[in-house]
Amino acid sequence: MNGGGDHGINGNSRSQWPDDVGIIDMEIYFPSQFVDQSELETFTGVSAGRNTKGLGQLRMGFCDDREDVASLCLTVVDKLMTRTGTSYSNIGRLEVGTESLIDKSKSVKTVIMQLFEESGNSDVEGVTSTNACYGGTAALFNSVDWIESSSCDGRLAMVVCADIAVYEPGPARPTGGVGAVAMLIGPNASIVLERGLRASRFAHNYDFYKPDLTSPYPIVDGQLSVKCYLQSLDKCYGLYKQKAFKKNGKKVDLSSFDAILFHSPYCKLVQKSFARLSFNDFKANPDNFTDTLQSSFAQIELEDSYFNKDVEKSFMDASKMTFESKTEPSLLIAKNVGNMYTPSLYGGLVSFIVSHESVESLVGKRVALFSYGSGSASSFFSIRVKEHVSMLHQQLKADVPSRLKARTKISPDEYDKTMKLVEDTHKLAPYQPIGSLKNLFPATWYLDTVDEKYRRKYLKTPL
Amino acid sequence: MNGGGDHGINGNSRSQWPDDVGIIDMEIYFPSQFVDQSELETFTGVSAGRNTKGLGQLRMGFCDDREDVASLCLTVVDKLMTRTGTSYSNIGRLEVGTESLIDKSKSVKTVIMQLFEESGNSDVEGVTSTNACYGGTAALFNSVDWIESSSCDGRLAMVVCADIAVYEPGPARPTGGVGAVAMLIGPNASIVLERGLRASRFAHNYDFYKPDLTSPYPIVDGQLSVKCYLQSLDKCYGLYKQKAFKKNGKKVDLSSFDAILFHSPYCKLVQKSFARLSFNDFKANPDNFTDTLQSSFAQIELEDSYFNKDVEKSFMDASKMTFESKTEPSLLIAKNVGNMYTPSLYGGLVSFIVSHESVESLVGKRVALFSYGSGSASSFFSIRVKEHVSMLHQQLKADVPSRLKARTKISPDEYDKTMKLVEDTHKLAPYQPIGSLKNLFPATWYLDTVDEKYRRKYLKTPL
Repeated sequence: MNGGGDHGINGNSRSQWPDDVGIIDMEIYFPSQFVDQSELETFTGVSAGRNTKGLGQLRMGFCDDREDVASLCLTVVDKLMTRTGTSYSNIGRLEVGTESLIDKSKSVKTVIMQLFEESGNSDVEGVTSTNACYGGTAALFNSVDWIESSSCDGRLAMVVCADIAVYEPGPARPTGGVGAVAMLIGPNASIVLERGLRASRFAHNYDFYKPDLTSPYPIVDGQLSVKCYLQSLDKCYGLYKQKAFKKNGKKVDLSSFDAILFHSPYCKLVQKSFARLSFNDFKANPDNFTDTLQSSFAQIELEDSYFNKDVEKSFMDASKMTFESKTEPSLLIAKNVGNMYTPSLYGGLVSFIVSHESVESLVGKRVALFSYGSGSASSFFSIRVKEHVSMLHQQLKADVPSRLKARTKISPDEYDKTMKLVEDTHKLAPYQPIGSLKNLFPATWYLDTVDEKYRRKYLKTPL
Repeated sequence: MNGGGDHGINGNSRSQWPDDVGIIDMEIYFPSQFVDQSELETFTGVSAGRNTKGLGQLRMGFCDDREDVASLCLTVVDKLMTRTGTSYSNIGRLEVGTESLIDKSKSVKTVIMQLFEESGNSDVEGVTSTNACYGGTAALFNSVDWIESSSCDGRLAMVVCADIAVYEPGPARPTGGVGAVAMLIGPNASIVLERGLRASRFAHNYDFYKPDLTSPYPIVDGQLSVKCYLQSLDKCYGLYKQKAFKKNGKKVDLSSFDAILFHSPYCKLVQKSFARLSFNDFKANPDNFTDTLQSSFAQIELEDSYFNKDVEKSFMDASKMTFESKTEPSLLIAKNVGNMYTPSLYGGLVSFIVSHESVESLVGKRVALFSYGSGSASSFFSIRVKEHVSMLHQQLKADVPSRLKARTKISPDEYDKTMKLVEDTHKLAPYQPIGSLKNLFPATWYLDTVDEKYRRKYLKTPL
C-alpha cells in the first residue's frame, strides 16, 4: 500500500470520527549483535538457568557507541517509509515515545525531521512523550485521538518508540535490550483499536526510575517493581471488565480474547502476569475453576497476594496451556532481543503477527494489550485484526524471523567491554565513536560524530 | 463553575466532535521572589538599560532549592482544582509539558497523581511531553484532540506546563524565569480553539538545547536561536494564511486578529516578532503599506532578512501602535516574571485576559497565538473568547495583578547565591533543602527532602 490513497480522509468537511482507526503498517528494528543468555550465566557465575529459565530470556540485543535513541528512530522510520512507499508529505503528525533521553530539552522527534527535509513538509505535529516503557502507548493513543479529531487534515500519523535498556553489572543486567518500532496510524487500518475499551491506571511510585541524569542506568526496586506491575494489571483489567460490561453488556474474561500481549520486562514476568489475569477471573467467578482452586484460594484477596507463591504457582499451572496459545507466540522478539522498553509491547504485536502461518488465521483476531511504564503508567486495551493486514503480515513474516537469525553472537566478555565503553563515553563532547560500522545491519543510521557543542551528526550504512 | 456539570459530554453515545472545545478555566503560579532587572544591570556591570530596554524585561522570578518542576505542578494543579471546585474524579486525562526534567524515565505527571489519591481516580491518561518551550502546546493540542476523540468518556482533560529557566552567569542569565500554568480542557469552553486553523513547523536545529544532562543550564546559540524563532514564525504564519484562505476564502493579515500572543523568551523579541508579522503582511500585499516601505524593501526576501536591521527597525516603527494595542498587554507576566519556558505563551493568555477591565470587552475577541520551542517545534493557531469566560476573567483579575505585587524583591547578590546553591545541590541525594519556607506563598507545594535513593517528598505550606 502507498500509505496514502486508500487511507486518506477529508479533514475539512467531516465532523465525525473516521472508521477503523489504528495501525496501518509497522516496522521493527533491533541491532545486529546479541549476547547469549546461557553464556552470560556462565560468564557472570550465576546458576545455570537463572537467565534462561528464571527470567525466560534466550538472547539479548545490544548496541555500541554507534547507536543512540535518535539513530534508532531514524533507522526504523526510514525503513518503514521506504518499505511502504509512503510520502513524507503524507505524514501530518509524528510522535516519539522514549525514556532514553539524550537531551533534556530538544526532542528526538526534531532529529527525525531531517528525513522530512527533502519533501519540504515541516507541518508535522507531535513531540516526545515520556513515562518509562509507557511512552510509546501514550504516543499511540495521542495519534489515534489526532486522527479522530478536527486537528487531522486527512494525512496520517506516525508513532515511533525506541529505547536502549542497559543496567549496571549485577542481577538486572540480563534484562536489558534495544529496539525501535514505527507505526503508521490512520483510518481503515490493519489493526484497529476498539473504541471505548481502554482502562488506565496512573500512580506515583518509585519502582524504577532514572533520577541520576549522569548515569545511563536506572535505579530499580525489584520487588516494588513487580508489585506495581501486577497491581496495575489488576486495576486496569478490573476496570476494563467494568467498561466492557457497561458498553456491551458482556462479561470479559480471558476467553474473550484470542491473544493477550504484555509489556515484557522479562518473559517470566509475562507468564506470571497471564496467571495473574487468570487469578482475577477466578476472583470474579470462582465457579469456572476447579474445586481445588476454590477451596485453596477463595479467601485470598488480590491486594494481599502479590507475593503469594502458592497463588502464583497454582494459577501458572492452571493457565499454562492458555498462556502457551494466547501469549507465548507474542514473546518471540522479547525472548531474543530482550526488554526494548517503549517498543516492547509493540515488538509483542509484531511477534504475534509473524506467529501466524497464514493471514487467514490472523484476520478477525481480537487481542488484548497491557502496557506498563514504571513510575507508574499503565493501560489495558483491545484491538481487532482486519483484512487490511495481509501485506503487513506477508512483509513482516518474510523479514523478522530471518533478521533475528542473521544477527551475530558476541561473547559476554566483548559485551561487557561494550557496556563499559558506552558507560564511559555517552556523556562526552566532542566524541568520535569507535564502534565498527561492520557491526551494523545495512541501511542502519548511526552516530558519526558528536562535536564540541554536543551536536550529533548521523549517517547511514549502505543498503 | 464546578468544572463538571455543564461541561460534561456523553462519551459512549456520540461519534461526533463536541462543540466549542478549548480552555474552560486556567490558573497560574509564579514564585514569591524576584530580582529587579535594573539592579541586576548594575550588579553585573552591564550598561544601564541592557536588560530593561534591550531585552524588555523588568523583573525576574526565581526559586531556591525548595521548588522543582514537580512542586510547581503540584502547586498550580492544587490551586486550579481548589478554586474551581473541580472533582479529581472528573479528570480523565492529565498531561504535563516541561523541559525541566528531574528524571529521565518517571514522568512529572505521575508525581501529580498524589493529588488524585483521595478521590480514588487513577484512570487518568497522559504523560509528559517534551520539546523545549513547546511541550505545553503539544499537551494542549493532545488534550483538545482527546476531548474530540472516542477516547474521551465525558470527563475533562487537564494540561499543566511548568519550567524553571536558569542560565549560567553571563548575557543570557537575565532571560531566566519560573512559572506554571494549569488549564482545564473540555467542550463549551471559555476559550475555544478554532478548528482547522493551525499551522506548524518542525525542524532539526541546535539553537537551544540541554545535552549536558549534568547541568541545569542549556547550551544557547543566541543568533541561531533568534533566526530559528523568526524563521518558524514566517513559515507558520504563511501556512496559517494559506489554510485560512482555503477554509474560509478570507485573506489573513494582522487586522484579522484582536490580539496576537507569542512565546516570550524576552519581551523585545516579541516586539521584533510582531514587526516580523507586519513584514510578512507587507511581502504578501505591499500596496497596504507606505510608498517609503515599498521603495525600500520590496526586493528583500523573508529568507534574507533575519538580521537586516533596516527591515527590523522600519517594521517595528510601522507596527508600533498595533503592537501596543494587540500584543503588549499580553506581556504583563513575561515582563515581570521572565521566561517561564512552556507556560510562557499561556502566561501571555492570562495577561491578555486580565488586561481587560470588563468582561464585555473580552468576549468575542479573536486571538492568534505563536508557540515556539527550540530544537525546533512551533505552531501558529487561533482562539475565540466565549461568554463562558466571565468567571475566569473575574477570578484572574482579582488575583494575578495583586499577586505579582505581593512578591518580595531580592538583591542581585542574594539571587546569585541562590542560583549557585541550586547549581551545586540539584543533583544531590540524599539532600535536605535549606531554603526558608517563609519565602513561599501560602498553599505552595515544596520539596521537603530527597532521600538516599533520590525519592522526593513534597509538602505544602499552610493556606
